[in-house]
Amino acid sequence: MLPRRSRLTGASSSDRGLPNATVARLPLYLRALTQLRSQGSQTCSSDQLAESTGVSSANVRKDLSHLGSHGTRGVGYDVDHLRAEIAQAIGQTQDWNVVLVGAGNLGTALAAYPGFTSRGSRIVAVVDADPARVGEQVGDLSIESIDQLETIITERSVSIAIVATPGQAAQDVADQLVGAGVTSILNLAPVALRVPEGVDVRQVDVAAELQILAYHEQRKGHPREEAEVSR
Amino acid sequence: MLPRRSRLTGASSSDRGLPNATVARLPLYLRALTQLRSQGSQTCSSDQLAESTGVSSANVRKDLSHLGSHGTRGVGYDVDHLRAEIAQAIGQTQDWNVVLVGAGNLGTALAAYPGFTSRGSRIVAVVDADPARVGEQVGDLSIESIDQLETIITERSVSIAIVATPGQAAQDVADQLVGAGVTSILNLAPVALRVPEGVDVRQVDVAAELQILAYHEQRKGHPREEAEVSR
Repeated sequence: MLPRRSRLTGASSSDRGLPNATVARLPLYLRALTQLRSQGSQTCSSDQLAESTGVSSANVRKDLSHLGSHGTRGVGYDVDHLRAEIAQAIGQTQDWNVVLVGAGNLGTALAAYPGFTSRGSRIVAVVDADPARVGEQVGDLSIESIDQLETIITERSVSIAIVATPGQAAQDVADQLVGAGVTSILNLAPVALRVPEGVDVRQVDVAAELQILAYHEQRKGHPREEAEVSR
Repeated sequence: MLPRRSRLTGASSSDRGLPNATVARLPLYLRALTQLRSQGSQTCSSDQLAESTGVSSANVRKDLSHLGSHGTRGVGYDVDHLRAEIAQAIGQTQDWNVVLVGAGNLGTALAAYPGFTSRGSRIVAVVDADPARVGEQVGDLSIESIDQLETIITERSVSIAIVATPGQAAQDVADQLVGAGVTSILNLAPVALRVPEGVDVRQVDVAAELQILAYHEQRKGHPREEAEVSR
């Protein structure tokens, strides 16, 4: 038998770390485990994790084996142990300071969202380009000027930024953020950002998600067209 | 030479339609093409589309060939033609009626977002479980009671729902939606929804996106640990 391995020495981790698909699913497992724990569960099966995340059981087992967690046959995974392991793997043993750029509807909604802190991120500043908004209260923070961006990033050890500006402003903001040393951006503006290598960007585009659903709806509503495909 | 093929008869489309990865990228191309058109471009290359969407050029060409669009060597793609083709493929030749459930911060921010209509979706109702919120104005709509959900869905031909409720309410809401005939759900609540086969769910979890970025940040910030991996 192989000894239990940590993420950092595990044979299944490449030099570049966990597979991206695994990284993208770890937060879902963590969310599910936290929920299971709050319901009093001390162990869970890969099937339970699959059910509560929407990931296939096979992928759950594969992902967790990347962390060195293989579970115990007939018992499953220890919920607390697995939570701690995933939290460590995704860097949730510390809080990450986040700056939010753009205090529009979406930005202010996110700034007020209570769920970030419990999941390892903390919005430490909200900035906006509109001088009239500066000083306005958003949750526990008051809006600061975008002119302060560089100072805020340096002095508050910000490593992650959320861009919630209108589309046409997003690239300029991203350039400023990168210039000030930010290397991770969550982009909520409906444009693709160009960033230098070494900067990670994740994009959330709600309108695009709706378009993807519309594609599926269209297919459901047009059985005749579907029939033609198989001719 | 093969004749130009439409999506519905193309050899590269399986019986089940376009590959999911292609479907997920089509809205990005459409967004980019709309932007190029507004800047006066009449043709564009796959490299330009790649640059403005963040998708690789090879994937751009592969995706568009699924639609039957191969471009012209040295000229590229006709912007208007390609826009129309993608719009048709993803069902954007009609507006899809959307019901938004949950008039919290995020829900009201989305209800007020002007970008949906231009991209094929229209929020036709905002409902909330809190009787005190009913009648309150959100953008052009006034909040309706969740008790009206079924009537709203039927009478306003709603096919897509956005769930922006707290996590603990989301599954009940999803069950109600599916019971009333909704077959596409965009889930913004931080839980995985269980739905019957034939119902499509897309999930947006901003906190999970931040956790994924935190994973990358952690790796960037710990060169010593990274060095250990390669031992």
